[in-house]
Amino acid sequence: MKINNILVAGLYEEIFQKHMPQTICQNFRFVAIDEITEVDLEWADAYVGSAPASHFDLSKLQWVHSFNAGVNNYLAIDGWEKNNVVLTRTICTFGQRISEYCLSYILRDLQHQKYFEELQEEKKWVRNPPVMLKDQALVVFGTGEIGQEVARSFSFFGTNVYGVSQSGAQKEYFQKVVTTTSAATILPEADWVISTLPLTNETKGLFNSELFSHFNDAAFINVGRGATVDEGALIAALNNGKIRKAVLDVVTIEPLPDGSPLWVREDVTITPHISAITDLDEAVTCFFDTLKKIEQNEALLNKVDVSKGY
Amino acid sequence: MKINNILVAGLYEEIFQKHMPQTICQNFRFVAIDEITEVDLEWADAYVGSAPASHFDLSKLQWVHSFNAGVNNYLAIDGWEKNNVVLTRTICTFGQRISEYCLSYILRDLQHQKYFEELQEEKKWVRNPPVMLKDQALVVFGTGEIGQEVARSFSFFGTNVYGVSQSGAQKEYFQKVVTTTSAATILPEADWVISTLPLTNETKGLFNSELFSHFNDAAFINVGRGATVDEGALIAALNNGKIRKAVLDVVTIEPLPDGSPLWVREDVTITPHISAITDLDEAVTCFFDTLKKIEQNEALLNKVDVSKGY
Repeated sequence: MKINNILVAGLYEEIFQKHMPQTICQNFRFVAIDEITEVDLEWADAYVGSAPASHFDLSKLQWVHSFNAGVNNYLAIDGWEKNNVVLTRTICTFGQRISEYCLSYILRDLQHQKYFEELQEEKKWVRNPPVMLKDQALVVFGTGEIGQEVARSFSFFGTNVYGVSQSGAQKEYFQKVVTTTSAATILPEADWVISTLPLTNETKGLFNSELFSHFNDAAFINVGRGATVDEGALIAALNNGKIRKAVLDVVTIEPLPDGSPLWVREDVTITPHISAITDLDEAVTCFFDTLKKIEQNEALLNKVDVSKGY
Repeated sequence: MKINNILVAGLYEEIFQKHMPQTICQNFRFVAIDEITEVDLEWADAYVGSAPASHFDLSKLQWVHSFNAGVNNYLAIDGWEKNNVVLTRTICTFGQRISEYCLSYILRDLQHQKYFEELQEEKKWVRNPPVMLKDQALVVFGTGEIGQEVARSFSFFGTNVYGVSQSGAQKEYFQKVVTTTSAATILPEADWVISTLPLTNETKGLFNSELFSHFNDAAFINVGRGATVDEGALIAALNNGKIRKAVLDVVTIEPLPDGSPLWVREDVTITPHISAITDLDEAVTCFFDTLKKIEQNEALLNKVDVSKGY
């Protein structure tokens, strides 16, 4: 593919200069996303950024590169297949970032940190043995590159990790992977359920009361996309003890509205979508790697299958 | 070595029966530690337990096995070398337990968990990117089996791990190991300092104001023994900013006295010596493994060098 003009949504000239290989011959235009005009979009062969600008027009573009791992905001626009536009996404260290996030909240629980904090306030010394990761069973929804990195990290500590994916294809670091429709066969064993799922037609509202009914006092961590969860069903499952606690880095409406009952529950932890914040240095490096592969017609590991949505 | 009579300090008959190999021909006596008499000690060739009973008499014993990893309570008794008594300790999963403890508190910090908890209370959604383990430098005091397991765990996540030991011998999973007297060469780089040191003549009060003066805003985690730290010097180092925060699973006097200023500091986390609680099933399995090796005169990986104290 021949790319001449690249429109970057954001005033990132300095960081692009820092990482730009010597051999780059493309023209770049850096514009704050709100100030991108139809003229800019007309000029560009390629578009790079966290989100599509308004008046986004796929008929004029050959390639779009997302600074994020999740691309549902781009896929909400029609015409990817019709216009044969390549969509790529940032991969980099998202898997490791999300693993560390999950590990931090799981260890907080297994190490009884909150219990010991309360004891310290009362100057009490009462022993309570931490639970080891090797004695836990973890079910990870999504066995792509992020889910797999989560599985690799927990397997290192001897955790029993099971996977759930659309295909049910077996993957390294998972003791077993089952299809989404067979999730009920392994969910009752889970101490922890982590969702790394992207938002697609298949995953929207996947975590509903039917799916939660198979949870057996597990804790639920969502590091995928908020709209994969029916939040009313989640609250009901917390109330009826199917779910022991929830750690939500993503929610259906972000920022979470003031009136949401999730904010005030003791059994819910809310974080503001930070488990895989894009590091700009990494994202720009990933962009230039992708550009090089596109110019040389190499295989793109980070190309989105727009029919699947990831 | 020929062992006939084994005195177990504690009413552990059931768990010993559960793990006892078929081939065992020794006699066992299970007595609560407070009720152990001189007659029991006279009868025994071997003693097993968390601590020595009163009237402990090394001249009558051939072998003592500690249920703990740290053996300073046993070594406080004189006569190990003179009476040629073998002292062994429990190893098992202590390294992994301590790694998970350290990881839990380091990740709590790097993931800004407390910050997000406070935001949730105010229903605020403010992003603040977590810091990754790969961008941290860790100095581990003690490069024995526990320190090495800590190094292995953090290396998995790409943390830069340095070691400090008496010999300074290089060990796997450490980028570099220096001697205790050269610790000042690497301490200023540390984001985290973890002590896994046992209590010996050499380590008593090792963490004093001189050593803390080389800390450069590092956080300090003690999972070794409390008396390796001069607690007054620790508090001074917290006050003058040499140390950013401390996580203490061990303290000089345990339980920590009510009057200790450590209880009430915001920059100190106290846990009641739980980072490596002995799991009885593991400890008994480890005991039978050691017994088998002793009977067959095999090398004992868990034998204590009483001159070194570990």
